[in-house]
Amino acid sequence: MKHFNSNDMKKMSSRYRAHLINSCTGYKSANLLGTKSLSGCSNLAIFNSVVHIGSSPPMLGFILRPLTVKRHTYKNFKETRFFTVNHVNTKIIEESHKTSAKYEEQISEFTETNLTETYLDDFKAPYVGESTVKLGCRYINEYEIKENGCLMIIGAIEHIYLPNDILHDDGWLQLDKINTMVTNGLDGYALPKLIQRLSYAKPDQLLYSLL
Amino acid sequence: MKHFNSNDMKKMSSRYRAHLINSCTGYKSANLLGTKSLSGCSNLAIFNSVVHIGSSPPMLGFILRPLTVKRHTYKNFKETRFFTVNHVNTKIIEESHKTSAKYEEQISEFTETNLTETYLDDFKAPYVGESTVKLGCRYINEYEIKENGCLMIIGAIEHIYLPNDILHDDGWLQLDKINTMVTNGLDGYALPKLIQRLSYAKPDQLLYSLL
Repeated sequence: MKHFNSNDMKKMSSRYRAHLINSCTGYKSANLLGTKSLSGCSNLAIFNSVVHIGSSPPMLGFILRPLTVKRHTYKNFKETRFFTVNHVNTKIIEESHKTSAKYEEQISEFTETNLTETYLDDFKAPYVGESTVKLGCRYINEYEIKENGCLMIIGAIEHIYLPNDILHDDGWLQLDKINTMVTNGLDGYALPKLIQRLSYAKPDQLLYSLL
Repeated sequence: MKHFNSNDMKKMSSRYRAHLINSCTGYKSANLLGTKSLSGCSNLAIFNSVVHIGSSPPMLGFILRPLTVKRHTYKNFKETRFFTVNHVNTKIIEESHKTSAKYEEQISEFTETNLTETYLDDFKAPYVGESTVKLGCRYINEYEIKENGCLMIIGAIEHIYLPNDILHDDGWLQLDKINTMVTNGLDGYALPKLIQRLSYAKPDQLLYSLL
């Protein structure tokens, strides 16, 4: 077994440490965030930090890196208040990863990647046509993490689009039916396969499979 | 394609909405958080909200539900300042899920699940022996998400334990070698398989595989 302590981590090159720390906390969700500026330029960027904040009302959160350089996603949803969250799947791994490149503000990642800029139900932010689960979100608030200047962004989920055949009777979505991916660190992409679904856990009760 | 808007979501039963909202944002990491109270009772609880906060210094974050009921994990790391993060793998799915049951404070989930309470290098919080990646963390700060009373907890990563054969030369960890799991919503567990690893993305440069 390998062991790194705080001193070992301090001595690492910044790139080595970035790979290690980004992968040691486990797999993360892989989502494309779509926005559009008031002047009409669309933007698309991959994020691996989307988390569940609450169901009632439906809210999600994600981490934005410090605003030391211009963050187009941030600028756009602050201007318009809207953004979309779109699942990365096996068919768009390279295109999704490519959105992490630092393009100029007036260049749309939709054009550069050939992902399809899609508008649904008059929502102001663009969805990704190739994503089979798409969320329309409204910016609510932000919290600065003062330890390193990152922002935690909170959004309300106002629209959910999904294929009928992944929706179970109890509201649960079976994500391996649509090949939704996860990220492994900064640059790895993995495909999950459902292994188990378990009953609500209570002390002194046996669990049973819901599959 | 199925479409739910905000009004549809409002009308859902709370359980249906919880399943839908927890699964619509994609897969999440699956980690067991280990703590110990000052009086010596250990606690273990599954979390799917661990995210990367920063590499320099190494920090992670996770979401804690509102403190309207007693949260033993929270109480313990506030008392001692320490907690551990341990990957869930294929061999401990049921035991890990079982830690979500509401046990009394004086009952240890390690005892109830038969997961092995393990202490390493004099660290004050217990690790899970069966987890192949284990992190020793120190509580740094918390941010209240005032929209619903959840807390975002920030921890410093002070120790990382991992098997040698998943560590690549550049610091990246290949998690499918140790069968680290992800969660699909509140109660689904999926096993990812690595599909691709891609070069750092720059405008006008072709991506290439790092595998």
